[in-house]
Amino acid sequence: MSGNLVEDLFDALCEIPLIDPHSHIDPRAPVSKSLDDILNYHYYTELAHSAGMPKDLLAPDADPQLRVASIIRYMDKFDNTAQYSWFLEIAQEFLGFSGMKITVADTDKLWNLADRTFAAKTWEDTVFKRTKLEAIFLTNEFDDSLDGFDTKRYIPCLRADTLVFGLHETEVKARLARVTGIEVGDPATLDEALMKLFENFIRHNAKACAISLPPGFTPSRDAHPMSPEGIFRAIAGKCRDFLIPFDLMIGVNRNVYAQGVHRGHDLFDQRTSLIQYAELFNDFPEVTFPVSVLTSNQNQELASYAWIFPNVVCSGHWWYSNIPIHIARDLRARLQSVPKTKLVGYYSDAYKLEFVLPKYHMYRGILSEILANDYVENGFMSETEAVKLGKYLLRDNVREIFRV
Amino acid sequence: MSGNLVEDLFDALCEIPLIDPHSHIDPRAPVSKSLDDILNYHYYTELAHSAGMPKDLLAPDADPQLRVASIIRYMDKFDNTAQYSWFLEIAQEFLGFSGMKITVADTDKLWNLADRTFAAKTWEDTVFKRTKLEAIFLTNEFDDSLDGFDTKRYIPCLRADTLVFGLHETEVKARLARVTGIEVGDPATLDEALMKLFENFIRHNAKACAISLPPGFTPSRDAHPMSPEGIFRAIAGKCRDFLIPFDLMIGVNRNVYAQGVHRGHDLFDQRTSLIQYAELFNDFPEVTFPVSVLTSNQNQELASYAWIFPNVVCSGHWWYSNIPIHIARDLRARLQSVPKTKLVGYYSDAYKLEFVLPKYHMYRGILSEILANDYVENGFMSETEAVKLGKYLLRDNVREIFRV
Amino acid sequence: MSGNLVEDLFDALCEIPLIDPHSHIDPRAPVSKSLDDILNYHYYTELAHSAGMPKDLLAPDADPQLRVASIIRYMDKFDNTAQYSWFLEIAQEFLGFSGMKITVADTDKLWNLADRTFAAKTWEDTVFKRTKLEAIFLTNEFDDSLDGFDTKRYIPCLRADTLVFGLHETEVKARLARVTGIEVGDPATLDEALMKLFENFIRHNAKACAISLPPGFTPSRDAHPMSPEGIFRAIAGKCRDFLIPFDLMIGVNRNVYAQGVHRGHDLFDQRTSLIQYAELFNDFPEVTFPVSVLTSNQNQELASYAWIFPNVVCSGHWWYSNIPIHIARDLRARLQSVPKTKLVGYYSDAYKLEFVLPKYHMYRGILSEILANDYVENGFMSETEAVKLGKYLLRDNVREIFRV
Repeated sequence: MSGNLVEDLFDALCEIPLIDPHSHIDPRAPVSKSLDDILNYHYYTELAHSAGMPKDLLAPDADPQLRVASIIRYMDKFDNTAQYSWFLEIAQEFLGFSGMKITVADTDKLWNLADRTFAAKTWEDTVFKRTKLEAIFLTNEFDDSLDGFDTKRYIPCLRADTLVFGLHETEVKARLARVTGIEVGDPATLDEALMKLFENFIRHNAKACAISLPPGFTPSRDAHPMSPEGIFRAIAGKCRDFLIPFDLMIGVNRNVYAQGVHRGHDLFDQRTSLIQYAELFNDFPEVTFPVSVLTSNQNQELASYAWIFPNVVCSGHWWYSNIPIHIARDLRARLQSVPKTKLVGYYSDAYKLEFVLPKYHMYRGILSEILANDYVENGFMSETEAVKLGKYLLRDNVREIFRV
Repeated sequence: MSGNLVEDLFDALCEIPLIDPHSHIDPRAPVSKSLDDILNYHYYTELAHSAGMPKDLLAPDADPQLRVASIIRYMDKFDNTAQYSWFLEIAQEFLGFSGMKITVADTDKLWNLADRTFAAKTWEDTVFKRTKLEAIFLTNEFDDSLDGFDTKRYIPCLRADTLVFGLHETEVKARLARVTGIEVGDPATLDEALMKLFENFIRHNAKACAISLPPGFTPSRDAHPMSPEGIFRAIAGKCRDFLIPFDLMIGVNRNVYAQGVHRGHDLFDQRTSLIQYAELFNDFPEVTFPVSVLTSNQNQELASYAWIFPNVVCSGHWWYSNIPIHIARDLRARLQSVPKTKLVGYYSDAYKLEFVLPKYHMYRGILSEILANDYVENGFMSETEAVKLGKYLLRDNVREIFRV
Repeated sequence: MSGNLVEDLFDALCEIPLIDPHSHIDPRAPVSKSLDDILNYHYYTELAHSAGMPKDLLAPDADPQLRVASIIRYMDKFDNTAQYSWFLEIAQEFLGFSGMKITVADTDKLWNLADRTFAAKTWEDTVFKRTKLEAIFLTNEFDDSLDGFDTKRYIPCLRADTLVFGLHETEVKARLARVTGIEVGDPATLDEALMKLFENFIRHNAKACAISLPPGFTPSRDAHPMSPEGIFRAIAGKCRDFLIPFDLMIGVNRNVYAQGVHRGHDLFDQRTSLIQYAELFNDFPEVTFPVSVLTSNQNQELASYAWIFPNVVCSGHWWYSNIPIHIARDLRARLQSVPKTKLVGYYSDAYKLEFVLPKYHMYRGILSEILANDYVENGFMSETEAVKLGKYLLRDNVREIFRV
């Protein structure tokens, strides 16, 4: 394959302004304040801990600078990974690090570079600009305040996990009563409360509802209305009424490794199927479901369900599947069998804005290789057409599907 | 990789005359009469509908020319897919279309080209010749008439779906009584009726029995003889007695999207295993089972079962797995671990003969890349030997296994 | 990709002395005595039988020279496979065979070459030297004698299968009583017996315990202590106390094809998950579990569990997954997401030492392509660093994890 073609496509894809449709950004602290904000990301603490780093420095109250030094020391054991490559790119792109490999000797230098860089008043804008980021979706608890930030830039998205799986808990009920004024006890009060929540979110420019779901979840038609499955379907009904997509992130088992680091407890069971959602897709034809699957094994189902169901859309490369080999295979399968208008290419899932760039870079690198290999080199498309195809995945579909 | 080598192998593979071992051709209307016969194929109506095309023009009684125009209009949304590439190739190879991309502006031209081309009295023979097609298997209902066509060219194959899953229905029983003269009510009358059916099919040159099966199907030894599993095993017994292979097409859930377009209702559940067929493979060692799996996930099982069981054969790349990335991976796994004499490489699954060529072209393109990369370039085989290996998959094994 | 780079990496990887962490070598008959010792390997008898070879010559008491002649005759039907390529390489590397393809005409020549070559007194040492093999792990029944061989070269490993799945049988109980002096009937006597077994194995330089497990096995916390799951957990406890890793080889169904050739009866059910072992991994944090999975489908789970759990390690490419396409995909996924210190790259699983070289060659070929493509060509690593990464997989991690 012509290296130049891939590079040209990559460069052209990098020119496309991004709307990142899923993240965990805190709009009041969107960028990092220290290197610890970067390296305390669970992708690094997990790998460091898995490679042998004791948990004391990984505790929330441990000294941040000592933690960073220790994680960099353990990085030597996982410098083969994609996760490490994101950090290397952050150091190079944002901190001016010029080496090809990060070693223990770089610890203080990087810490200080980060301190200096992140202290700039304009840092948030700088990251937006360098990332060519236009807007980014948040993931908001139902009782998050949505005031005090620019909701055109930080687009609210209602996270439904707590409502669906926690509403039997007294505390969650109390939180819901606090923001809606409604004591939920039956389908009617549930409906009222959801109505209030949705009204509030929509008023604040929310463009989606999202939920992560365990492998065994099956929201069937005859579920009890106050069961998780019933509440889930009630929320789908609200997405229909308020005309917003419902992001389904399917396949995570929570708390599998209970002693793990913060956010490093969850794994999965590959034995799950989208057939569990067939009734949902049939019953809510007006709702668009951008579906993310946690394992590459599920990708053929996802592509096939999106090929058949008008309201099922392929969405991003989630978590344990956000690894080059899985992205490459899953993306090719989607491109080869699903309408291009139904592919939400990627999202960063980031906690801090600095991660949007390296993650999208990884994705664009893979996308440009696929476009070159499967579309341009065999004469099926021109270079320009291929970039246009990439633009659907990187931008156009987000705008269209989420009505941004 | 040397592009020339791949092209040379591809050209050599294209010289091999084909016997297509599975299709849905109607031997009395084997070729298209209008462009609607091409584009009303469920692969196009599914994608157009999935991309947003309303269902009115997709109804059976809608105007064919308006339907074609509308599908081409929606094609703009799925011109990234393998399915689209088949259509482009049909337009180029059979209709003399010279463009690289089909747009709305081409609609009338293509419609007229098709009309003119398909009107030729010799069109059926022309397609056979250009496709280098020698013979093609049909999929016949048990009460189809097998008279009035050349069964050397259109080889009958008994489709067992209705018998296995419908025999409890009064109407199916009546149809069976009509063609066999036997009212089936117990294992003895079932055996008699099957005997008559098989005698009739074999007399008409039938070379196989075939069935599609849902993911959960488990034809165990102790099934009730009049249950689907029991009837299935009775049919396997007839395949043994009449010396024909039993094609198993494993993994489809029917009617998952009930509101879908014609033939676009079916999907699957990846959670299925060939272990469900272990008793069958053990109990019928004299029957050859060419097995197709619906998902690429099942391919390692298929290759491994074919590696171990003398009577299990890998067969084609079915439906949702008939996509380049899945074919490439599944085919390499089979070639690397299963005797070459046990690989039925491909079948078209076509409803109209015009699809045999582009589908086999896709397959031969992938096969030639694998032969070049995995066998010739590393010095493991000469180019001539590699083509011979390809010939097993494209022709020799069909002749040997189905005794054509 | 530069062919030279791949070759250079391959050559450098071939210089690394091997410690093979899993085999079925008999330390008292480690090398072949005739060509039948090579071709009677179940990988060949399975494929020959699957391709049509009758079972009479595959019976244990059949004439070895006639069997070899027949297998070579059937080899013509599976000369496309990876398994065949190992044999070709053995003929070339060890027997001085100079052809590129083995045919029936070579039978006598190969038989005689093998006879002459294997008769050399120094043959065992020669194989060790040419293979650059330092040591190789055995798989010992609990009552195997561990005396009379060099346990630094042939490292004992306790196979737990019989204890876990057979202890309800009178004969197994009697065998256990014979070697430990203890009649096991309850948890206390089980503990005593295991203690004696482990003491004996550790005294003889055993470095691991290993077991193969069926797809449905779930060793949960509340298992009855004398059930297979309970005994399994008791053995895990002994691994903790004696500081040795517990190799889990997950996913095999025994005796699926009961009429198969010797060792060719076993297959699998892809529907299995590491979630079944979550309680085990949590309850025995001090035990390292090198996990092998039988299907490539399970590899993403394996990589993800090793990414999260400090005590889970990825191990080799087992049996039906020891095929280039599966190795390549599984290895890339592991390298891209798991600390390099947690990857036991490969083991031969060999019954005769001659197989270590061609199997590791296959692996090193794939590894060198991945290192070139994913690490060196994109500037992420130097060639030297890439070889060092390979060394972790081929040697360093075996030494570290098994304390060799």
